[in-house]
Amino acid sequence: MSELERIGISLGKHLLAQFDELIAQRNYPNRSEAIRDLIRQSLSERGLAKPTTAAVGAVFLVYDHHAMKLSQRLVEIQHQYLVQTVASTHVHLDHHNCLEIIILKGKVKDINEIADRIITLKGVKLSRLNMMSIGARLS
Amino acid sequence: MSELERIGISLGKHLLAQFDELIAQRNYPNRSEAIRDLIRQSLSERGLAKPTTAAVGAVFLVYDHHAMKLSQRLVEIQHQYLVQTVASTHVHLDHHNCLEIIILKGKVKDINEIADRIITLKGVKLSRLNMMSIGARLS
Amino acid sequence: MSELERIGISLGKHLLAQFDELIAQRNYPNRSEAIRDLIRQSLSERGLAKPTTAAVGAVFLVYDHHAMKLSQRLVEIQHQYLVQTVASTHVHLDHHNCLEIIILKGKVKDINEIADRIITLKGVKLSRLNMMSIGARLS
Amino acid sequence: MSELERIGISLGKHLLAQFDELIAQRNYPNRSEAIRDLIRQSLSERGLAKPTTAAVGAVFLVYDHHAMKLSQRLVEIQHQYLVQTVASTHVHLDHHNCLEIIILKGKVKDINEIADRIITLKGVKLSRLNMMSIGARLS
Repeated sequence: MSELERIGISLGKHLLAQFDELIAQRNYPNRSEAIRDLIRQSLSERGLAKPTTAAVGAVFLVYDHHAMKLSQRLVEIQHQYLVQTVASTHVHLDHHNCLEIIILKGKVKDINEIADRIITLKGVKLSRLNMMSIGARLS
Repeated sequence: MSELERIGISLGKHLLAQFDELIAQRNYPNRSEAIRDLIRQSLSERGLAKPTTAAVGAVFLVYDHHAMKLSQRLVEIQHQYLVQTVASTHVHLDHHNCLEIIILKGKVKDINEIADRIITLKGVKLSRLNMMSIGARLS
Repeated sequence: MSELERIGISLGKHLLAQFDELIAQRNYPNRSEAIRDLIRQSLSERGLAKPTTAAVGAVFLVYDHHAMKLSQRLVEIQHQYLVQTVASTHVHLDHHNCLEIIILKGKVKDINEIADRIITLKGVKLSRLNMMSIGARLS
Repeated sequence: MSELERIGISLGKHLLAQFDELIAQRNYPNRSEAIRDLIRQSLSERGLAKPTTAAVGAVFLVYDHHAMKLSQRLVEIQHQYLVQTVASTHVHLDHHNCLEIIILKGKVKDINEIADRIITLKGVKLSRLNMMSIGARLS
């Protein structure tokens, strides 16, 4: 964490009481940690709106692992975008389905483009893309 | 606003600098206002996860106003859920489309149910439900 | 609706059975209506990713109606963006809170900018922006 | 995929033309694949609304890998929820930050609870939870 600063915030008694309740429910160690989380989340979301923001993304895929062609296409695409592809994790969900998470790193627009190439492949049953901007110094 | 309290928050220098930049970009009058907004938003989202939370919702509909039957069904549904229906606003978007916003107030689960009745009507072209929990004292 | 076309779709027996169940639960009159809804929704979401797409948006605000200055600022902003401001609806939620929904029409980026001006005003307790792209012919 | 069935869908000429454009842009092999995707996504989202639905989730974390205590707590939590924890992948983002993706499998409510335990740990800079319901037969 960079050098710490201390700031003062004023807020209504009722609002504070409810926030404290939420903090307790969610097991945050203290208010500062909870507020830092809210701030980082809002900075990250803001960042994602710009196509050129540095980000890390993960594509979730559920697919039938009997779909041999799909596995092959997945590997091809990851090699094609070698610079942006960081890693992938494969999990066996049940007899039919497996889950693959492909981690991508790059500009928001590049991650979107690669994810779209993957998500639309024949044989993919479910998919989702998750991104977080990492351009900002977060601490 | 209820009686004000003042709390101290510590956070890293870099994180604070970026937050201040975001605050300036978004024209917030000060840090307290921006943080209060983040806190209220997170309390409201948390509240929506419980089906019995008191909430206010708005159903957006885009539909063809030549669809006479739909207009009639919309009125019928609003009367059927008279307790939850607060108001509706109708806007002419273009020659074909109109936008209707139906404001609902009640428990999260009731708003969801009514919205689903409306959204699935034949003739509705686009729809979206927006909810905010209002159970919490927000100031 | 424009001239109707009929297309054939093939899908797995199990997937179809579950879709039919969902359709029944949500009271859709038939499969075509449910699929048209999914298609329109996905076109609209896609459209919102472009800053210049024609859209309609609604800003939800919960605020304390004793905040006289805020009401005045809200009116001023709406007049300042006269071209984009379509209408606003005001609802009394309880003794303290009122809900205002301001309907905006314009390019995605303009709606975002105006909404941000409104959302960050001092006195706004909760806010949300909802947008739907309307550039596409939806029927 | 389970035994295939073929169904007919009717939709407006303009809507179909735009859908075809979207399909081409996104590189879907054909309309059936694109519509199956929309259907599965909507079934999955619906499923997530029930706390007892079988799901797979992934928690994304960005944190400073100098935070030794956090790494230890992460391992402890994963062992505590051994049944639901499937795997985790660790990626070095830059000199300060690393990304960890923890894959969880279980009921929606369990995944939410575990994720909350993780997300609120001191030292986590950014986090997000992504879930997909897998209860339904998806093919």
